[in-house]
Amino acid sequence: MTNARSQGSPAVVLVSGGLDSATCLAIARAAGHACYALSFAYGQRHSAELQAAARVARDLGAVEHRVMTIDLAAFGGSALTDRSIAVPEGPGVGGIPVTYVPARNTVFLAFALAWSEVLGAHDIYIGVNAVDYSGYPDCRPQFVAAFERMANLATREGVEGEVPLRIRTPLIDLSKADIIRRGAALGVDFARTVSCYQADDDGRACGRCDSCRLRREGFAAAGLPDPTRYR
Amino acid sequence: MTNARSQGSPAVVLVSGGLDSATCLAIARAAGHACYALSFAYGQRHSAELQAAARVARDLGAVEHRVMTIDLAAFGGSALTDRSIAVPEGPGVGGIPVTYVPARNTVFLAFALAWSEVLGAHDIYIGVNAVDYSGYPDCRPQFVAAFERMANLATREGVEGEVPLRIRTPLIDLSKADIIRRGAALGVDFARTVSCYQADDDGRACGRCDSCRLRREGFAAAGLPDPTRYR
Repeated sequence: MTNARSQGSPAVVLVSGGLDSATCLAIARAAGHACYALSFAYGQRHSAELQAAARVARDLGAVEHRVMTIDLAAFGGSALTDRSIAVPEGPGVGGIPVTYVPARNTVFLAFALAWSEVLGAHDIYIGVNAVDYSGYPDCRPQFVAAFERMANLATREGVEGEVPLRIRTPLIDLSKADIIRRGAALGVDFARTVSCYQADDDGRACGRCDSCRLRREGFAAAGLPDPTRYR
Repeated sequence: MTNARSQGSPAVVLVSGGLDSATCLAIARAAGHACYALSFAYGQRHSAELQAAARVARDLGAVEHRVMTIDLAAFGGSALTDRSIAVPEGPGVGGIPVTYVPARNTVFLAFALAWSEVLGAHDIYIGVNAVDYSGYPDCRPQFVAAFERMANLATREGVEGEVPLRIRTPLIDLSKADIIRRGAALGVDFARTVSCYQADDDGRACGRCDSCRLRREGFAAAGLPDPTRYR
């Protein structure tokens, strides 16, 4: 797994506290990066995920973990930040889910870009997945490619540097079962992660939302025990 | 000036409180948009500019003015957010100035994108200028074009909508004198704006920093009196 070229080079890794980003961080570490974990308090309902993010960053050897507070909830428009919109239970009906937060990954990656520039990092890792989250526009490969291109025009490094910035999306084509198998092989303790859209303050999952359903089906498909604590 | 197609359509306008963004807002209004002004408290030294932003938004008829607090200073790396780096006085020596804030316009535009999506706005105005700020990578036309392309892949509107999102940069090719003449013709009261990188709490300018120098030279070249209050 170790990449000699990037041994010890800094990378910014977006860590939400969920299963996907934990696996993404483990992959970045296994690639030899010194990992700078970045999380956001953005008005989401499930603040238990931030405690999970801190656990995951520590468990998986991040050099540093920062939590940026941003008020995406001020704009509204999502079930994850607007309490007047219900989180749906059961499978969706196609189109873009109400749990989509407007421009969330654009905002997250913009902050990661700012930090990467100050750190001199050439790699930003984000655990987006185009299989289970095909309804989210900002989880698609063409979005990531366009962000990467923009990022290389946005920064001092992009103008003066010789090494291009890369947005790394190691999970983008994986099924949930593949992600779980990959994370397990790299030693991720999924009991420490929180995926539920409406976890309680202790991080216990509802077992009914879309994110819980995908996670549970993933463990079943991977043939691994589901360590999730349901309430 | 009025564009029938966009009469009354919402636009998000980034408003810093400086001369350029005030003119940009006046141009957006003259184009017939309902303007939603967006400013940032991002740890900048010159918080007097936020008071100026509120004045400018009110003066120029913005429907709403929001200030997002974001901690770009947490990343450091700029004289505008890091008090351990001195704001230079006198002309620069080429290259990217130390007043450049890493990924600032990317972060600002990302938030504008989030708000535009919730508002259903198809226009985002930013008063970047490639003439006086050629040293800032994120003030160049190629950056703006790449952001626009990315934005149209990032959002629900970009995936499902029929009208593309446009990043409007009406000042990008103008000299400071042109911007001043344009703003004056549209009724902007420049005495209400603050451009100085190190204005005092009353908004009085230092008269020595790069931003003050460009502004003063701009009024002289435009043949208009400089209403700036120097300390």
